[in-house]
Amino acid sequence: MRRHNLALVMHHISQQGPTSRARIASALGLTKATVSTLADELLRAGLLVELAPEPSPGVGRRGQPLALNPEGPSGIGLEINVDHVTVCLMDLTGTVRHEDVLRADNRGRSPRQVLADSAPLVRRALELGRADGLDVMGLEVAVPGIVASDTGRLLRAPNLGWSDVGLGTLLPQVLDLPGLRVGVGNEADLAALGELWFGGGAAWGDFIHVSGEVGVGAGLVFGHRLFRGAHGYAGEFGHMTVQRRGPLCRCGARGCLEVFAGQEAILRAAGLAHVPGTRHGGPPGSVTALRTLVQQGEPRALQAVEGAGEKLGIALSGLVNVLDPDTVVLGGLYAVLAPWLVRPLTRELEHRLVVERDVDALVRVSRLPGDAAARGAAGAVVRRLIAEPPTDRGPQGRRDGGGTTG
Amino acid sequence: MRRHNLALVMHHISQQGPTSRARIASALGLTKATVSTLADELLRAGLLVELAPEPSPGVGRRGQPLALNPEGPSGIGLEINVDHVTVCLMDLTGTVRHEDVLRADNRGRSPRQVLADSAPLVRRALELGRADGLDVMGLEVAVPGIVASDTGRLLRAPNLGWSDVGLGTLLPQVLDLPGLRVGVGNEADLAALGELWFGGGAAWGDFIHVSGEVGVGAGLVFGHRLFRGAHGYAGEFGHMTVQRRGPLCRCGARGCLEVFAGQEAILRAAGLAHVPGTRHGGPPGSVTALRTLVQQGEPRALQAVEGAGEKLGIALSGLVNVLDPDTVVLGGLYAVLAPWLVRPLTRELEHRLVVERDVDALVRVSRLPGDAAARGAAGAVVRRLIAEPPTDRGPQGRRDGGGTTG
Repeated sequence: MRRHNLALVMHHISQQGPTSRARIASALGLTKATVSTLADELLRAGLLVELAPEPSPGVGRRGQPLALNPEGPSGIGLEINVDHVTVCLMDLTGTVRHEDVLRADNRGRSPRQVLADSAPLVRRALELGRADGLDVMGLEVAVPGIVASDTGRLLRAPNLGWSDVGLGTLLPQVLDLPGLRVGVGNEADLAALGELWFGGGAAWGDFIHVSGEVGVGAGLVFGHRLFRGAHGYAGEFGHMTVQRRGPLCRCGARGCLEVFAGQEAILRAAGLAHVPGTRHGGPPGSVTALRTLVQQGEPRALQAVEGAGEKLGIALSGLVNVLDPDTVVLGGLYAVLAPWLVRPLTRELEHRLVVERDVDALVRVSRLPGDAAARGAAGAVVRRLIAEPPTDRGPQGRRDGGGTTG
Repeated sequence: MRRHNLALVMHHISQQGPTSRARIASALGLTKATVSTLADELLRAGLLVELAPEPSPGVGRRGQPLALNPEGPSGIGLEINVDHVTVCLMDLTGTVRHEDVLRADNRGRSPRQVLADSAPLVRRALELGRADGLDVMGLEVAVPGIVASDTGRLLRAPNLGWSDVGLGTLLPQVLDLPGLRVGVGNEADLAALGELWFGGGAAWGDFIHVSGEVGVGAGLVFGHRLFRGAHGYAGEFGHMTVQRRGPLCRCGARGCLEVFAGQEAILRAAGLAHVPGTRHGGPPGSVTALRTLVQQGEPRALQAVEGAGEKLGIALSGLVNVLDPDTVVLGGLYAVLAPWLVRPLTRELEHRLVVERDVDALVRVSRLPGDAAARGAAGAVVRRLIAEPPTDRGPQGRRDGGGTTG
């Protein structure tokens, strides 16, 4: 009961912003004495802070608003993707305190190698957190693959060439931080949650967030919640068929969306693939090069992007017809290329949607094109801290100097 | 509060079957006196009946189990589809008391004409109900089209050629029963609900029910509830793209599932279309003729059905990858053709699913191939009677001899 009430108070403040004990008591139907006891415990644990009293006469100490502690426990999100690694340090209030990106071609490299490359980024985030008085309580990894919802094992990440990897145990080993609490989630799911929590959010209603990366994934948000499917594998959008006898996809089937509108397909069509004819996401900087070319109106690059927009529009039409969302959000590469991608995409939607829609209102561009997944991952840690406030952290709120033992 | 408790008692009995006042009180956390008062009201209104006392010694009147009244208020479901009209009379217990099918080609005919043809079926169901002591409290129409969730107007039924029809007001006019309470729902949605309530049900978990008719629709059931989408239009599965430059569909787009696997496409491919080359669902009896031909192993018919199975498998793969359901249920025409359709369909699923699945366990055949939508429609009426028990029906439980004034 006490734990439940602690979580209620944390949740209320996270939703409403700074507010007084009296208002919390009234909103939650608790007595002021109960709220004061709970607040004292959360203050002692460094989860809340008291702000300066509101400037209204006759209000005593109890009138000091309570706020989430921006120097309290925090979380790290780590997106490991095919051509980049992104780290994000987020405090309890949801503010990004530090972010870093490593551009790299991770294909064909082992999980241990990629984690070793990522380690300096994670260590730097931990150090910066420590310098800011933040206590990193956990880390969530976003990966472009199928994650078992029960064990957290990465079952398969075809575009990385990985299968059956226990990232949750491997990462603390590589970092030499055995106590670090590591969760693992699907990149497209966490990107959609990032958008829900820190991007377009509730205003987008029911939305489908499409992550354009080397792989193409979707995160489905219905009723402000991530739709995970019966086994946690929902959102594998990249292998929707666009042309049943089309080009062969890495998955073994023909004509999947990904062979037309995945990052490597677009780069190859634009003449920017590193090694022509091979399956390759392109060297670091290829996306920037592509963007420059389409900005300059280079015909081959433009055609590549517009062709991808058309195929994406075909696949999205099928999904919008079946799922009837309020909004479709273009994320990742598609957000970067949106100025050239959106027109051919909406043309297909107008042509193929069974129920007439204002497709310009239907299609939106991500507010977090570069880091939705890393933010969603960090946000997942922070939201767990709010749902299960770690009040046993002690008065300093820190049990060791480096990582966590959560 | 009283209305809420009346509904609780009705719902409990509908879920548990006949049970005693004492057990109801214990299960719902009400006093026995309260349950007795509620039960008396429901008995008086003809919604419940008392069964013979359980043969245990020492149990008085209060030990007589209460059951839903199979002679109480009831509902009618009416499916109006392109090549048939089906009526279903269902009592409070969910038992089908009468069912009737009219095979007809309704394409190009006006809503008023089709309703006039359906009127004798509905009148006969009302008469049979009256003869059995049933009081028909409402009627739900299932239509193959887009129904506005707020007004209940049929916005568009492309395969019937209808648009913007107020069936809910038109049907009572045609029947000359101005008080008849008529609801309207999408055929694929109501078929999925029929399966949920009276077919495979909860054992199927999260399921996608595919209605093979002249049009192809899907009903999505997640968490034992119909998923309706943000505006109530979810489930338009027939226009998923299978081949982006494929044959032209009636919807104006190319290569939709429906042009490969809709009923008329299959009949045409099998050489059974009434007028070759025209868009036509085939004359009454075509489906039976097709089934006979494939049973006999006629090559052209077999090829037509197997080709449809392949295309259906391609479209379903995309949906299963994105939605990760427990089960895919083949309904309507697809249930009839399942013995020949399933193998090419599962071959595509095996080939195209990103997460490996036991596809034989994934794909199931409807338990209600002919009448899922009509049963779902009648069930929708009956379930409303349970959720809002009409206790003001008076001691006879009937206010007029023919229809309803609900």
